[in-house]
Amino acid sequence: MDALDTALESTGASAFVMYASSQDANLRYLTGFSINDPVVYIKKAGERGLLIVPQMEYARATAESSCAVMSRAEAGFFEIVKEEPDRWRALAQMIANIAGGGFLLPASSPFALGRALQAHGTVQVDNGTVEDIRAVKRPDEIEAIRTAQRAAEQAMAHAVARIRDAGVLGGMLVEKDGTALTSATIRQEMHILLLRQGCRGVDTIISCGEETAMPHRLGEGPLAEGEPVVIDIFPRDERTGYYADMTRTVVKGEPSPEIREMYDAVREAQALSIGKIRAGVTGKDVHQAVVDFFSDRGYESGAKGFVHSLGHGVGLDIHELPALGPSGGELKPGNVVTVEPGLYFPGIGGVRLEDMGVVTAEGFDRFTRFLKELCL
Amino acid sequence: MDALDTALESTGASAFVMYASSQDANLRYLTGFSINDPVVYIKKAGERGLLIVPQMEYARATAESSCAVMSRAEAGFFEIVKEEPDRWRALAQMIANIAGGGFLLPASSPFALGRALQAHGTVQVDNGTVEDIRAVKRPDEIEAIRTAQRAAEQAMAHAVARIRDAGVLGGMLVEKDGTALTSATIRQEMHILLLRQGCRGVDTIISCGEETAMPHRLGEGPLAEGEPVVIDIFPRDERTGYYADMTRTVVKGEPSPEIREMYDAVREAQALSIGKIRAGVTGKDVHQAVVDFFSDRGYESGAKGFVHSLGHGVGLDIHELPALGPSGGELKPGNVVTVEPGLYFPGIGGVRLEDMGVVTAEGFDRFTRFLKELCL
Repeated sequence: MDALDTALESTGASAFVMYASSQDANLRYLTGFSINDPVVYIKKAGERGLLIVPQMEYARATAESSCAVMSRAEAGFFEIVKEEPDRWRALAQMIANIAGGGFLLPASSPFALGRALQAHGTVQVDNGTVEDIRAVKRPDEIEAIRTAQRAAEQAMAHAVARIRDAGVLGGMLVEKDGTALTSATIRQEMHILLLRQGCRGVDTIISCGEETAMPHRLGEGPLAEGEPVVIDIFPRDERTGYYADMTRTVVKGEPSPEIREMYDAVREAQALSIGKIRAGVTGKDVHQAVVDFFSDRGYESGAKGFVHSLGHGVGLDIHELPALGPSGGELKPGNVVTVEPGLYFPGIGGVRLEDMGVVTAEGFDRFTRFLKELCL
Repeated sequence: MDALDTALESTGASAFVMYASSQDANLRYLTGFSINDPVVYIKKAGERGLLIVPQMEYARATAESSCAVMSRAEAGFFEIVKEEPDRWRALAQMIANIAGGGFLLPASSPFALGRALQAHGTVQVDNGTVEDIRAVKRPDEIEAIRTAQRAAEQAMAHAVARIRDAGVLGGMLVEKDGTALTSATIRQEMHILLLRQGCRGVDTIISCGEETAMPHRLGEGPLAEGEPVVIDIFPRDERTGYYADMTRTVVKGEPSPEIREMYDAVREAQALSIGKIRAGVTGKDVHQAVVDFFSDRGYESGAKGFVHSLGHGVGLDIHELPALGPSGGELKPGNVVTVEPGLYFPGIGGVRLEDMGVVTAEGFDRFTRFLKELCL
């Protein structure tokens, strides 16, 4: 982690300090360790990181993490709490004893800990050093994301086939036995398919009709003929921890003219923006190109219409740097991003198409191979 | 949330403020809203909570949360960032404009936000008000946990049956076709069973032999005859968000005398401690009773042997209050806790048994019905 050493040098802090579980992707990235409960991570310039863990995790952390490992007992925690009953102050004391004075903390560190550390030295907020490292993927990370993407496409193929093969009864999609075909059923089938490929699907979106005007509405009930169905799936590989992310919008039967026009615009917007992506271009400009394109087509952005950013980084977090949006900086080779224009209008519905790939010096190497077809 | 109003009154703060995603169980509990990215929650005394969300989540938050909802645009965020490019200071300004001066923050709030809020008023750290509310379950929460527990037991029954029905070849467990029966296979089957019951299993532990001396080692490879297999499953109901938690230790064939003795001690320790649980007793005393019992049997606690706490609360988090451990306070009716004594010795292995139930005025209403048998 050379960049962390550089950050330590430039801030003059004696150590970079985290207190987080591996739900914090930075901790998982820095340590290679998975743990549900928060642990202490201390990194001094030029040294290997140190994990301080509960006794019960000591042997596992030694076996599984890339760090030096110490138990809380070895770190003196239980001696300190005898004198200092406040848990956060005791934790700060333990950290200060090991890290020295002057701490560089992630912005997301617990406020109670940061405040308690101020009694032991200057506390500075790190300016996203680890997020910036993570935004540029190594080849093995790209391969892990591609693997998750392949699983996502198999699950998507299943969902699309289920809708294509469904019967129609009274305007609703039905199973062969005439019972309603629901979002919940297809979601469960997709999640089982993903598990068989070593991936975990959570909160997969299968929304229909009115629901699709809300971009992140999960969807639960029966699916309807002639209505948009938004399918957004973002599985995580259980072994590597890396995500994929993709979205398709389909209609069983004949869509309304509004949905058809929205679909064509979204599809063109995606092609247009993907054509602009390459290292050196800013995420802001790529996003703005879509805003302008939609505007030319008569679609607004902001409170209605295109209500979200064009895309986001994907890695150990489902949403990470870089942003393809109003705040998006310069893209770099190795950035893995989604490109997902969408249009949403209450009373009409929503359309979103999302592909994913890696930014290169010349352009965009798209991982997503799945067809785009509106009408099934 | 009367307790939050009381906390606001006693601290003199104008508002309780959170910035978190629903991965923070407090946010999910207070708002009923599920969201992957952090949002602002502001609660003033006597008022309904307010969620401030990105535009794309506005309609969904209105439909799904129990809160008043405002978009970031309505909250003035985009006007503020024009003048204040630092994201955390801009967020603090937006919050201060709405919350007034004087903020009560959870200890886990982002340090960068808490520090920025200090420019607008006194910042106090809340002393676990929401965690304390959550620790005492309502009847509907107890039912949700019981439901998840039923799913856990079906998955456990499958795992135990797979081990019982396995063949043995050269000391290893094998499938009917003679191939190795692995932890990974059984884990995947359990997770599929759980999905069919609307639950999500993550990081289910199926460790064997040497691995079992590490309490949270997942386990991956082939299972062996005559070795302890620790199966620890903690599924989450996808609809309600509530967890269950249970552990069994089994051996295919004949265990070593050490494992048999450890198993008997752990089983007796569990019965003994469950007999002590009732409202008014402290978690510390129940934990200590097990430490003392193990000591009488010649098993140490701490660095070896019984290396973890006796148990923990379960709810929207897998580990929450109250603690059955050295820091455990007085138990209350409605606390849902695990009771999970364990013994771990490198070179010998580990044994853990975990049941779950609710604390009552008279004792402990155990949810777990699953048999305990060491030898399969």
